[in-house]
Amino acid sequence: MAKSPTDQGNDDDARAMLLELRASIDNVDAALIYLLAERFKCTQKVGRLKAKHAMPPADPAREQQQVARLRALAKDAQLDPDFAEKLLAFIIKEVIRHHERAAEEHA
Amino acid sequence: MAKSPTDQGNDDDARAMLLELRASIDNVDAALIYLLAERFKCTQKVGRLKAKHAMPPADPAREQQQVARLRALAKDAQLDPDFAEKLLAFIIKEVIRHHERAAEEHA
Repeated sequence: MAKSPTDQGNDDDARAMLLELRASIDNVDAALIYLLAERFKCTQKVGRLKAKHAMPPADPAREQQQVARLRALAKDAQLDPDFAEKLLAFIIKEVIRHHERAAEEHA
Repeated sequence: MAKSPTDQGNDDDARAMLLELRASIDNVDAALIYLLAERFKCTQKVGRLKAKHAMPPADPAREQQQVARLRALAKDAQLDPDFAEKLLAFIIKEVIRHHERAAEEHA
């Protein structure tokens, strides 16, 4: 069945709104990438500092604080706290990979 | 062996720098959480829009563009492009979980 002019207009509106939402998602993603790059710059400095001053690489008390804080922030932002915690674990896994690579290059 | 006053001073400086870096990491993490909350608001709107207008939920061409764009942004930010791609996949998995939950609630 051919679409009525009204249906076609609705579809065009929906398509325009989809493109607008996607443009916002793309903006957010760019911001996420640059923020993550900044975060890794910080963790790389932490890694070098810890290596230089023979501090233990892992700090379970700090990690517990980070998890509790991120869960509270997620709740405030109406984001699933479990997702926030999983995301932090995902990022920390990458941080550890960086530290291991740095240690290998140092050795 | 007891630490010399100089060693102790170096350790105090290192500890202060560690706390400073951690404060920056905490700031970045808060920004990441709020950005992600905003991103999910957009994807939830996309989900509702697609459901309402019977648009296909997945769009492989769009996803390919997103991956290519994020990899380019990651390179520019000196972030591992593979990590950026894995992170996008991780977030999209959560988006799909949201869409599935929304569809269940709608049914």
